[in-house]
Amino acid sequence: MITSLIHDSAIISPLAIIENNVEIGPYTIVHDNVYLSSGCSVGAYCELGLPSTLAEKKELRFGKNCTIRSHNVFYAGSQIGDSLNTGHYVCVRENSIVGNGCQFGNRSDIQGDCVIGNFTKCHADVHIGKMSKVGNYVWLFPEVLLTNDPIPPSTNLIGVTINDFAVLAAKVLVLPGVVIGKDSVVGAGSVVKENIPEGKLANGNPSKIICDANILRMHNNPKLKGYPWRYRFHRGYPADVVSAWLNEFHEK
Amino acid sequence: MITSLIHDSAIISPLAIIENNVEIGPYTIVHDNVYLSSGCSVGAYCELGLPSTLAEKKELRFGKNCTIRSHNVFYAGSQIGDSLNTGHYVCVRENSIVGNGCQFGNRSDIQGDCVIGNFTKCHADVHIGKMSKVGNYVWLFPEVLLTNDPIPPSTNLIGVTINDFAVLAAKVLVLPGVVIGKDSVVGAGSVVKENIPEGKLANGNPSKIICDANILRMHNNPKLKGYPWRYRFHRGYPADVVSAWLNEFHEK
Amino acid sequence: MITSLIHDSAIISPLAIIENNVEIGPYTIVHDNVYLSSGCSVGAYCELGLPSTLAEKKELRFGKNCTIRSHNVFYAGSQIGDSLNTGHYVCVRENSIVGNGCQFGNRSDIQGDCVIGNFTKCHADVHIGKMSKVGNYVWLFPEVLLTNDPIPPSTNLIGVTINDFAVLAAKVLVLPGVVIGKDSVVGAGSVVKENIPEGKLANGNPSKIICDANILRMHNNPKLKGYPWRYRFHRGYPADVVSAWLNEFHEK
Repeated sequence: MITSLIHDSAIISPLAIIENNVEIGPYTIVHDNVYLSSGCSVGAYCELGLPSTLAEKKELRFGKNCTIRSHNVFYAGSQIGDSLNTGHYVCVRENSIVGNGCQFGNRSDIQGDCVIGNFTKCHADVHIGKMSKVGNYVWLFPEVLLTNDPIPPSTNLIGVTINDFAVLAAKVLVLPGVVIGKDSVVGAGSVVKENIPEGKLANGNPSKIICDANILRMHNNPKLKGYPWRYRFHRGYPADVVSAWLNEFHEK
Repeated sequence: MITSLIHDSAIISPLAIIENNVEIGPYTIVHDNVYLSSGCSVGAYCELGLPSTLAEKKELRFGKNCTIRSHNVFYAGSQIGDSLNTGHYVCVRENSIVGNGCQFGNRSDIQGDCVIGNFTKCHADVHIGKMSKVGNYVWLFPEVLLTNDPIPPSTNLIGVTINDFAVLAAKVLVLPGVVIGKDSVVGAGSVVKENIPEGKLANGNPSKIICDANILRMHNNPKLKGYPWRYRFHRGYPADVVSAWLNEFHEK
Repeated sequence: MITSLIHDSAIISPLAIIENNVEIGPYTIVHDNVYLSSGCSVGAYCELGLPSTLAEKKELRFGKNCTIRSHNVFYAGSQIGDSLNTGHYVCVRENSIVGNGCQFGNRSDIQGDCVIGNFTKCHADVHIGKMSKVGNYVWLFPEVLLTNDPIPPSTNLIGVTINDFAVLAAKVLVLPGVVIGKDSVVGAGSVVKENIPEGKLANGNPSKIICDANILRMHNNPKLKGYPWRYRFHRGYPADVVSAWLNEFHEK
């Protein structure tokens, strides 16, 4: 059953499946083979399930309670978890897998064939190149760019890997095939050409390992360690996850 | 009275206030509590006054003669002066205060809780982080990014301050809390980690003070000093402002 | 004759000329003096031929078989060759000349008064400043920015020149007036302040000439030279062009 919250001007394919309690804004287009789970809200001027020869007749599926803001474009063929929260002008290409609780800021560009874990947050203008692998609870700040072609142009793409809890600050550029370790932090404006081990702070162009990330202190409270950030920053994460983080902290 | 220049396909809340002599383009949405002063022109596919829990029922007010181009998104709760001129795909979040005569280029992103003075011009892809304070007659060139979180992620944001007449060239990245002095100039591609005093030229990653900005000469006329730019560049500024600049110049 | 593939919700000026076999998507606006040749396909929410005082009543012309994806904005006054292929949210300003077979990725911004050759490909977020001259078979990767104002703000713009077959990797910034030679390659994240001769690899901020580009080998096949790339990469180019490239290669 199609609920009553679909705006009259929205164009909905009869081959799209829309659960109850879904809102769709004005002028939005939903193509064939789109599945919108209950609780999803889609803003105006979005195009969902754009057909592509790279994902012929493949489903674009949104889990429960996703919030897709205006002017987004999602191609056919991706699987999106629950509670994705997008800004405006976001584009997600074909055949990506996105976990639960993720956030894609304004103009984020997920270029396709990517795997993104749970609760990973991309700020504005984050560009995730094809074949990137981004873990859980990762933070990608504005204008972070993950590349994939070592000798461009070519068809030999090697995606970047970003492990859990890593933080890439604004304008960080990561070269193809680089692996960024769990709990590591990359300073703003860095160009990362070599792998970064777990728990390190890297900075510069080209980036160098500076120190263990857990040496950094909060600027407004020098008694409080900045990293791993999950011991001190909990806004927007589920209670059971936060509880596990606090247990881990107290056991250390 | 609603003028006749509102396109039939525009969706206008009865709780929006639209003065005379306003144009609104096709498919644009104007929500509750938006105030459009006379002489404003809004392009197609814009969404003005997007509701937000961060600005519950707060007015989004545009002064006279603003030109809002297509595909813009303005949230509720900001106060915009007269004659704002935007490019396309611009997004302005909640609770910002913008002066008169400003310009926001294509895809500018004003992230909210910002204060921007008069006649400040942002080129394309300028990203102004939450809590930034940008003065009057400032120039932010393409892909300038003002950040706000010293130890991300956190809730202890410290905005950047850009003083009057400062010029930040293309792709400049400014770290949280940095203060950029009046009449200073930052070279393209710089990463600014420390304050820049008044009237200096800074450059590099990390940026260093190179010299007084007024040493720079015009490339096509070495007799003419490049800075302060207000002594030589006047296009688009009001006659009384230009006249005051010229008086200041002749008194020096 | 207007074909039947124009969506009912599209707004088409009677002064636009639309050849047979053209598709126009929902909610798109086509203004006066737009010429769409046969085989063109235009997505949703596009605005083509936006009027401007910089191109009064000038034609915006698209050659055959162009694919213009959703949310694009093209101003009046540009001449576009055959088979342009755009991503989403692309903006092309007034009075540019674009050859055949070009590609403009998501959010590409062609700022006007540019000349772009044939088969030049811009990835996402490429920003081509006013008065740039970009040759044939050039590759501009994500977030490449071509500037034009040596002492900003000014009206003495000097465009960048990029010669045939050059490759600028991700986030490369090119300063005003710089000339980048044929077959040259610029490494990711570089800031190019000086001219680069033909066939060189340059890298860094500021960029320096590192070596001849043809020293680079494919990462997955060290026997294969990476550059000139036209000897090894042919996807998407016409058969006669590829054949000429292979002849050139075998004659060397």
